[in-house]
Amino acid sequence: MSDEVNLSAADFDRLARQAFENAGLNPKRATAAARVLVDAELMGISTHGAARLVSYSARMQEGSIDAAADITVERRAASLGLVDGRNGLGTAVAAEALELALSMVEDTGIAYVGCRHSNHLGALAPYALQACEKGYLLIAGSNASAMMAPWGGAEVRLGNNPIAVGVPVSDGSHVILDIAMSEAARSKIRAAAKAGTPIPSGWAADSEGVPTTDPVAALAGLLLPIGGHKGSGLALMVDILSGVLTGGSFLNEVASGAESPDQRSNLGHFFLAIDPDRLIGRATFDEAMARFRNIVMSTPPASGTERVTLPGERMLARRRAALADGISLPHDLHASLVSLAGGDGG
Amino acid sequence: MSDEVNLSAADFDRLARQAFENAGLNPKRATAAARVLVDAELMGISTHGAARLVSYSARMQEGSIDAAADITVERRAASLGLVDGRNGLGTAVAAEALELALSMVEDTGIAYVGCRHSNHLGALAPYALQACEKGYLLIAGSNASAMMAPWGGAEVRLGNNPIAVGVPVSDGSHVILDIAMSEAARSKIRAAAKAGTPIPSGWAADSEGVPTTDPVAALAGLLLPIGGHKGSGLALMVDILSGVLTGGSFLNEVASGAESPDQRSNLGHFFLAIDPDRLIGRATFDEAMARFRNIVMSTPPASGTERVTLPGERMLARRRAALADGISLPHDLHASLVSLAGGDGG
Repeated sequence: MSDEVNLSAADFDRLARQAFENAGLNPKRATAAARVLVDAELMGISTHGAARLVSYSARMQEGSIDAAADITVERRAASLGLVDGRNGLGTAVAAEALELALSMVEDTGIAYVGCRHSNHLGALAPYALQACEKGYLLIAGSNASAMMAPWGGAEVRLGNNPIAVGVPVSDGSHVILDIAMSEAARSKIRAAAKAGTPIPSGWAADSEGVPTTDPVAALAGLLLPIGGHKGSGLALMVDILSGVLTGGSFLNEVASGAESPDQRSNLGHFFLAIDPDRLIGRATFDEAMARFRNIVMSTPPASGTERVTLPGERMLARRRAALADGISLPHDLHASLVSLAGGDGG
Repeated sequence: MSDEVNLSAADFDRLARQAFENAGLNPKRATAAARVLVDAELMGISTHGAARLVSYSARMQEGSIDAAADITVERRAASLGLVDGRNGLGTAVAAEALELALSMVEDTGIAYVGCRHSNHLGALAPYALQACEKGYLLIAGSNASAMMAPWGGAEVRLGNNPIAVGVPVSDGSHVILDIAMSEAARSKIRAAAKAGTPIPSGWAADSEGVPTTDPVAALAGLLLPIGGHKGSGLALMVDILSGVLTGGSFLNEVASGAESPDQRSNLGHFFLAIDPDRLIGRATFDEAMARFRNIVMSTPPASGTERVTLPGERMLARRRAALADGISLPHDLHASLVSLAGGDGG
């Protein structure tokens, strides 16, 4: 018996939707919330894909995330919206906000929609993809539980707050950047601690704020931001756009869903959409993006690099392959999904 | 005789305005364009202050920047604007765009205004300060002449495109981040080459894309982005917002004003303003920013750091001091300004 189960994208999506409906989401929300995790898995972001169906479902079952939350949507102006997630599922709250942003940008050419009282929203790239597929540029961000210090500090008070930017390309080869503001992900440091290997310098500092290559000291200490004060500053600004401007929580007020699964996370997010067509016309924009992509992709590669790629290029290639050939899930994970979906295997 | 000349902020501003009027700008444009350089100098960003008055004036005199350009301003929608700088002075073009963005955000709560066919716009922080002083949050960016490779490449095709975010605080202690996407500024590498000292690893690569600590090889090679692919991706996105979305130039289509002073630079910029008052009300926003600032500033410092500061805190402190006590300029630079202003010394 194989350790991996192959599943078509459609079957995986059906399982995911059913699991979320069983957890208590209404069908519309279950569909939208599942889509984000399915797309993440298809794009190869497996840390934010199928595995999250299991962890999110557990938190809904134990009641620390409210599957039936009365998520409220408020239009503050023609291009400004606020969503109060009321501790609902993060992917459902964020999907609601994205829907409002895409409706507003269609009307006015620009929109900012922020969310407060939300939970982990998965990866940002799938939201950027949805905006790109409708022809809009999207800047999205979220705060996260504290794992860095503001630059110069020695105590975790700042998330490695991710930001994504999606730029639509008419033939589907969208440019999608999705990055967190720490030099490395905490999961990589956990893996090094487990393997007993040192981590590269620049990734982390110990609990006194002194840089370290010891993964155990790093886990008790701080992740380091990209570019020192620069990444710290960017993380602060993503936090302001996600947590302050939404009337929500920020910095160390945000709780970790992984470390404090019984607490409300109180995460904030934002979605800022712009319509290139309204600014310079679709044809001009498409021509410019073709030129832009060509200049980047034709850059002579450094030794050791085969070809220069654009942000998101590999994610979208993996997604195309997964839509054609399906995805592989570890047997145990697949079994959990089937169980959450009610045992019929999709 | 002292090597430095002390000058009041008001006298410096008068000199700067007069110099720009003498270069051919109309009085309104000269005032707006001078203000940006004066504020940069007051904030301690001396690389983008008084010295630029001299270099910009030289380029206007030789005709590679058009002091009398017919800068055109186009309202594409209630919250979307485009400015065609027509090779006008960058600080004048950008000031025009900021004025439009601040007028639109007052009406609708949000605005994006982009510029094409512009020139070097000075530092971004002074623009952010102007928005903050009117109570608006501002995200601003510009592309720059190529000095990095897109990640994985070995040829300069990408600027270290700066971004600034300004967040208004009612008592004037605004939070202002202004950073470029390279690990270090090119000027620091030039200084190391002059001094014959090695540069830190992580700053630059040679012309094959191989990391180097030799400043001479670095100057013939590439600046490295913060966080590897992350900073490269951010620089690409700032370029798209500044150069693609404005119908302008981008990547290696942008020329260097310093290295090719006789060519049009064709720079692009953007200004994105949001009104916190329209989203959550001024009182709620002010209370949240006070909490936010307090959490950051009270972070226990790492060894070697006295206190954790907020982005822009030191710049604004220097500006307050300069407004009270004046600024010091090297004698030669002051003499050049006096000469450009017509010899009356302000």
